[in-house]
Amino acid sequence: MASEMIIDHREKANALLKADADKILKLIKVQMDNLTMPQCPLYEEVLDTQMFGLSREIDFAVRLGLIEDRVGKAILDELERELSALHEASQKK
Amino acid sequence: MASEMIIDHREKANALLKADADKILKLIKVQMDNLTMPQCPLYEEVLDTQMFGLSREIDFAVRLGLIEDRVGKAILDELERELSALHEASQKK
Repeated sequence: MASEMIIDHREKANALLKADADKILKLIKVQMDNLTMPQCPLYEEVLDTQMFGLSREIDFAVRLGLIEDRVGKAILDELERELSALHEASQKK
Repeated sequence: MASEMIIDHREKANALLKADADKILKLIKVQMDNLTMPQCPLYEEVLDTQMFGLSREIDFAVRLGLIEDRVGKAILDELERELSALHEASQKK
């Protein structure tokens, strides 16, 4: 049971980080659809703040040994790719 | 051994968060001593960013079940108390 709990911490850390990345993507999507343009400084600021928060969580999980460094980088890279795609799509409208 | 690893994750999470809080305190101390005044907007921005980063780490550790909610709040409260004391001391100079 104890070793299941360790796996659980690792899996939970992974799931939480991916859910947080997904939350940022949704927040930015809502913002693009309804509130402000990507050129707006507020948009940049919200995005920067959220990305900083996520990167601090990832860094913390890596330092705790709950996720590997490359996995943390992959989560951030994937989010950045999705944000770029979203940004491009909004400019084609 | 497996249960020792769980305790280790909890202890490590606690130690990392306290070390990060301490790092913020030292950063602000250096900034007060050498760079800018507490009234400077840059000082406020650095502090806000650092506090936000730490609160995200704490929130993440709480969601992972590695620290209790009240312990996380206590780390932030303690840091705020120390920052206030530092701020007051700098104004008496």
